[in-house]
Amino acid sequence: MSTLLLDKQAVNSLLNMEEVLVVVEEAFRTWGEGKGNMPPKAYLTVEKGDFRAMPAALTGHAGMKWVNAHPNNKSRNLPSVMAVIIYNDPETGYPLAIMDATNITAYRTGAAAAIASKYLARSDSKSLGIIGAGTQAHTQIIAHMEVFNLNSVNTFDITPGSAEKLASDLPEFPVKLCTIEEAAASDIVCTLTPSRKPAVMNDWIKEGTHINAIGADAAGKEELDPQILRRAMVVVDDIKQSTAGGEINVPIQKGIYSTNDIHGTLADLVLGKIPGRTNSQTITVFDSTGIAIEDIAVAGLMYEKAWQSGDYPMIDLV
Amino acid sequence: MSTLLLDKQAVNSLLNMEEVLVVVEEAFRTWGEGKGNMPPKAYLTVEKGDFRAMPAALTGHAGMKWVNAHPNNKSRNLPSVMAVIIYNDPETGYPLAIMDATNITAYRTGAAAAIASKYLARSDSKSLGIIGAGTQAHTQIIAHMEVFNLNSVNTFDITPGSAEKLASDLPEFPVKLCTIEEAAASDIVCTLTPSRKPAVMNDWIKEGTHINAIGADAAGKEELDPQILRRAMVVVDDIKQSTAGGEINVPIQKGIYSTNDIHGTLADLVLGKIPGRTNSQTITVFDSTGIAIEDIAVAGLMYEKAWQSGDYPMIDLV
Repeated sequence: MSTLLLDKQAVNSLLNMEEVLVVVEEAFRTWGEGKGNMPPKAYLTVEKGDFRAMPAALTGHAGMKWVNAHPNNKSRNLPSVMAVIIYNDPETGYPLAIMDATNITAYRTGAAAAIASKYLARSDSKSLGIIGAGTQAHTQIIAHMEVFNLNSVNTFDITPGSAEKLASDLPEFPVKLCTIEEAAASDIVCTLTPSRKPAVMNDWIKEGTHINAIGADAAGKEELDPQILRRAMVVVDDIKQSTAGGEINVPIQKGIYSTNDIHGTLADLVLGKIPGRTNSQTITVFDSTGIAIEDIAVAGLMYEKAWQSGDYPMIDLV
Repeated sequence: MSTLLLDKQAVNSLLNMEEVLVVVEEAFRTWGEGKGNMPPKAYLTVEKGDFRAMPAALTGHAGMKWVNAHPNNKSRNLPSVMAVIIYNDPETGYPLAIMDATNITAYRTGAAAAIASKYLARSDSKSLGIIGAGTQAHTQIIAHMEVFNLNSVNTFDITPGSAEKLASDLPEFPVKLCTIEEAAASDIVCTLTPSRKPAVMNDWIKEGTHINAIGADAAGKEELDPQILRRAMVVVDDIKQSTAGGEINVPIQKGIYSTNDIHGTLADLVLGKIPGRTNSQTITVFDSTGIAIEDIAVAGLMYEKAWQSGDYPMIDLV
């Protein structure tokens, strides 16, 4: 036995959104069928930031993502968030692979949102709104372009130059710069900001819009006017995580929203246990916090591809 | 930046018990002073075994051990327990090293017990009793030989040939085969079995003995006649873990022992917050469950030594 070593460059060479969409949707299906296990994250807090251990198992897969968040890293020219996955054989526990998980995280988050859009957005959606043109915007656009025939990606960022950079990074896609109100008037809207107060107002959102609320991933964070949630059919990736730190966490704390108002989970939607959109007027929201089964499913894909290619280094780690 | 890669062979070449004893004692001191953080382990259960994420931070160190337990692995010619540590810079979260942690676990466990013996056993102890001559016995012997002038290591194992193998593996030490009663009559006794019922009886233990109870590391496991605990001054590595799965867990469940009976923690002992042995008659017990600060302290030592030598591979992992 030996362990595959997949560094950043190797993972980037193996990542393909079409394949990631398949395995992430399958992960939600498997988990929804009760064939998975995802214990709560373990948090380690240090002076300058924190770390999270995110373990998960699915049929045929087991592993753990270890990811930090150090907000002041930009001043040191380092990413704020870096992640490593240890991917194991569930039958023996053997560590089959060690891999960079920074781009796996971006890809699985884009894929989960596009899967939610597939079930919740109008199937004739033509425009994608991007609010927050940082790293995560790339994979949201790539994933949605796989699922929808979009003719316009309406992009806004509060930082001058960010939307321009995104457009120049993705010349193959119809990225257009616009105001936040114009981005919010798109058929599908992705909010990708670190906001701690509502940035997207209720009266900007037209009937029939689907929103992927991605930015809120910790207590106190919110991007949407809570009145949007009250009008909308809300689907979450994980009820506990969303309640604790997703888009709904602040409205729940304030008593404006309740877990009883949640329509259901993405797993239930994929399995057909709950209905998706039934008319063209409903506003739908996917509250994404990011869950470990997504990471482990993509890690499994990376391992299989790397193993079959025979092109990546193996080490006698343990 | 790049990440040091330390495989099994590299870690074995760097491990030195004299140094491990220093950093593990320092870890208990730092943690006891409140300069550390060790959140509860996260458990991931799969059909054939389980995995544990063990995160910890100490001044200057952060990281996480990911360790499996798959009892049926022997039939596949694989170890039941394999472990990997991701060692991070607490200032930035950067993964400074990925390393095999299987032997780190054995060394830190041996070191913690020998440190407990240093504070709790009679300083003129001459004999070490080993009950259970498996992998863990090696590092218990090596660690105790660093701290004490022992003239005899009295070894018993229930499996024929195990004690003989230990003696032939360690020809430099005075390993002698004996009965379990003779091993239990040593000055310092280490119990290293997977027992789920008392294996060491109360009337075998003479006054003034120090016992390191290492084997019990999960609910339902116990090695000592609970009457020994009632006679003894009991020190634990972590009150919560020992109560949940250490040597005291079954007696506590049965109402024979109480957390109020615990003398204190090894950290308190190292810091002088509680007294150690005060006479030559007291029976003392160290209940070791194995804690993440021990692993991270040794990982820090491995990283420093490997970095300074410049002899180990670095990769652009993240």
